[in-house]
Amino acid sequence: MIEKILIANRGEIAVRVIRACREMGIRTVAVYSEADKDALHTQLADEAVCIGPAPSAESYLNMQNIISATLVSGADAIHPGFGFLSENSKFAELCEQCKITYIGPDSKVISALGNKSVARNTMVEAGVPVIPGSKEPVYTVEEGEKIAGEIGYPIIVKAALGGGGKGMRVAQTPDEFQASFQTAQKEAQMAFGDGTMYLEHFVEHPRHIEFQILADKYGNVVHLGERDCSIQRNHQKMIEESPSEALTPELRQKMGEAAVKAAKAAHYTNAGTIEFLLEKSGAFYFMEMNTRIQVEHPVTEWVTGIDLIKEQIKIADGQRLKLQQKDIKITGHAIECRINAENPEKNFRPSPGKITDVHFPGGEGVRVDSAIYTGYEVPPYYDSMLAKLIVHADDREEAIRKMRSALGEVIIEGVDTNIDYQYEILNHKKFISGDIDVEFIGGMMNETA
Amino acid sequence: MIEKILIANRGEIAVRVIRACREMGIRTVAVYSEADKDALHTQLADEAVCIGPAPSAESYLNMQNIISATLVSGADAIHPGFGFLSENSKFAELCEQCKITYIGPDSKVISALGNKSVARNTMVEAGVPVIPGSKEPVYTVEEGEKIAGEIGYPIIVKAALGGGGKGMRVAQTPDEFQASFQTAQKEAQMAFGDGTMYLEHFVEHPRHIEFQILADKYGNVVHLGERDCSIQRNHQKMIEESPSEALTPELRQKMGEAAVKAAKAAHYTNAGTIEFLLEKSGAFYFMEMNTRIQVEHPVTEWVTGIDLIKEQIKIADGQRLKLQQKDIKITGHAIECRINAENPEKNFRPSPGKITDVHFPGGEGVRVDSAIYTGYEVPPYYDSMLAKLIVHADDREEAIRKMRSALGEVIIEGVDTNIDYQYEILNHKKFISGDIDVEFIGGMMNETA
Repeated sequence: MIEKILIANRGEIAVRVIRACREMGIRTVAVYSEADKDALHTQLADEAVCIGPAPSAESYLNMQNIISATLVSGADAIHPGFGFLSENSKFAELCEQCKITYIGPDSKVISALGNKSVARNTMVEAGVPVIPGSKEPVYTVEEGEKIAGEIGYPIIVKAALGGGGKGMRVAQTPDEFQASFQTAQKEAQMAFGDGTMYLEHFVEHPRHIEFQILADKYGNVVHLGERDCSIQRNHQKMIEESPSEALTPELRQKMGEAAVKAAKAAHYTNAGTIEFLLEKSGAFYFMEMNTRIQVEHPVTEWVTGIDLIKEQIKIADGQRLKLQQKDIKITGHAIECRINAENPEKNFRPSPGKITDVHFPGGEGVRVDSAIYTGYEVPPYYDSMLAKLIVHADDREEAIRKMRSALGEVIIEGVDTNIDYQYEILNHKKFISGDIDVEFIGGMMNETA
Repeated sequence: MIEKILIANRGEIAVRVIRACREMGIRTVAVYSEADKDALHTQLADEAVCIGPAPSAESYLNMQNIISATLVSGADAIHPGFGFLSENSKFAELCEQCKITYIGPDSKVISALGNKSVARNTMVEAGVPVIPGSKEPVYTVEEGEKIAGEIGYPIIVKAALGGGGKGMRVAQTPDEFQASFQTAQKEAQMAFGDGTMYLEHFVEHPRHIEFQILADKYGNVVHLGERDCSIQRNHQKMIEESPSEALTPELRQKMGEAAVKAAKAAHYTNAGTIEFLLEKSGAFYFMEMNTRIQVEHPVTEWVTGIDLIKEQIKIADGQRLKLQQKDIKITGHAIECRINAENPEKNFRPSPGKITDVHFPGGEGVRVDSAIYTGYEVPPYYDSMLAKLIVHADDREEAIRKMRSALGEVIIEGVDTNIDYQYEILNHKKFISGDIDVEFIGGMMNETA
């Protein structure tokens, strides 16, 4: 039985994991960079270990320091959160070698799914629909141009180890290919230390629909319905909701079955997410599988009543899933808005600094996941998310009104935020009607430009 | 259709009602005393009207000013919240006369149920079990002593218009009767302007179990399960939970049916609560019916998924209940802790003053209903409740752990609070085992004394 978990992360997700552990009677160890000595996760954990200077490479990405902190503190498991080392198969492997329970799938599974070419081939073999794309990794512009011509434009260039929009670019025509490829590859090198790329046909005006799955170590896999994450800017999600307006019960069942099939084909264990692109026609394509908890997991928690972090811990601990597919019901509608320290009027430039006042809404159907407090200094080193505001109501219309009301109550002073921008989206007639796709934000910007 | 609601209250319940209205697209009018010009409810409503000086009698109990504010602002309905005028039949009657929709039952029903003798007789006729007690109102010590002798000691003295523990005293023996009666009557005079009293046999070591009901104007009545409010100090509830550990499904059904019967017998409409005393034997007695929303309504909201304030508004608006008894399912376990500005070490003396820092917990299964903020000045004129912390989990054990974890995250500086005291209760072995009754707090105090 897991008795002590080290959380290899920071911010709200570290706080989220600490809370789940407390409720399960599991002791917690926080790790923190020098910039995070006063952070909430550092304060809330039972123990806290400094793992290095502020830059991520020297602390939150420093595997040796994190493994040492685990061994020294006597933690028997590591929760990786999201971002940082959460999809790094070498880190999972290191945990396995050190006999530390890694709260996630096996390193080999992370490695296979993290490599988009391998993941794609697995899905093709399992009969999960995929977008036409390069069968092998692509390393150079020349190779890429040839393959892109075969697949057909528009083309999207993606980093094999990428995620969260980093290392991704679209080339609408052959003329754009070279610049797109080089920019994406450069970003990939910077962000992941690896320039292996992958090409795909770019599906226009798709929705981003992802399915949450849970898989135990005994071959039991269930899906927890979908999240519609179409509201994105530069491939960064801003608003997520569940269920999606675009899914009929039949399509939900079909995509859910495909998600379960995908997880089984990959020998997946723990919580994971299968991302699909959904066309207006109802055709859907496997995009990638995220081998970790997602930022947007609370919307699924609210419509299913299932605590995903606790499920992750139980699965890692070798427990069997108590849930069967037929037990999982989607109730009401949940929406999440990510509140970031950024200035939408200055091209969403991050806005670190001292938070001089915070006031969050509460009440029925309102959840706030955050790690900020009055007097907290938002460091410039990490991502700019300050809080996730999640609401739940009987239906989408009511949930939108609740989110507007809740956003209207948020006060964050000292840094710029995207709250007004989120409010604009929630008041946009296309959003209200549910007519959204991944190009929604771009379209909205053109309207006001 | 109701388009604009005036909220004749303050604090967190006023904020709660404003939120529900916003989500329903209904405009709101706050009323505020001079002491509450910077209060959250004053800030959040669409409009705000000052109704007088700080003392309640001159503002929140000032019917004429509130009715004037309603007429001037063009509101078509009044939500009374709890406390203040919420169980005052004269106020409801005044609304009826002025053609203002009162969000609650008819004035005649409030009047009948507010008078404990009348209420009791109604219940006896309907076949709802009641505690042996005085059949008529009692005005003097002499009358009371005679009747008490007939009923049998211990005796509880209660104000006919009372509620929330005010105007209530227990006399264990005839020797204690005079002092108990006089103290209770004096309190009743002060609090409700009426010294009509009522006597009952005092059931020892009972649980306080109350049933939430909803009744529309067409004779449809449902109950939403029970709340166990046994954790009380001087008849003031501190912790409430749903469901109760003491109820089997059979007993829940039996008490629920009695609650529905009680509501029907009283020709009740809107949301109401039937309070029972439950003996260890499983026998239960009707205590009183509260003709308004309760402080502890969120625990019911969480286990049923039903927004009680919205239901209140819909019912007042003449809509039919969409719910049938068979649709109402109790899911998981919810607990509420009332966080008060008071000092448990100084006999719970209220602690008004300026709040210099607030930080509330969030995350999965945590709800905060509050009207305080950093810099808010808690006025000395009103009750001392600062916030309600509500948690929900799969079962009671997990809910208790979640509440402990959540309480541990609360920071309120500048005033004394009962947070540590609540934490002690949650760690008490009797509370954890579910072995609680209305004398729990008294027992706990004796242990530490």
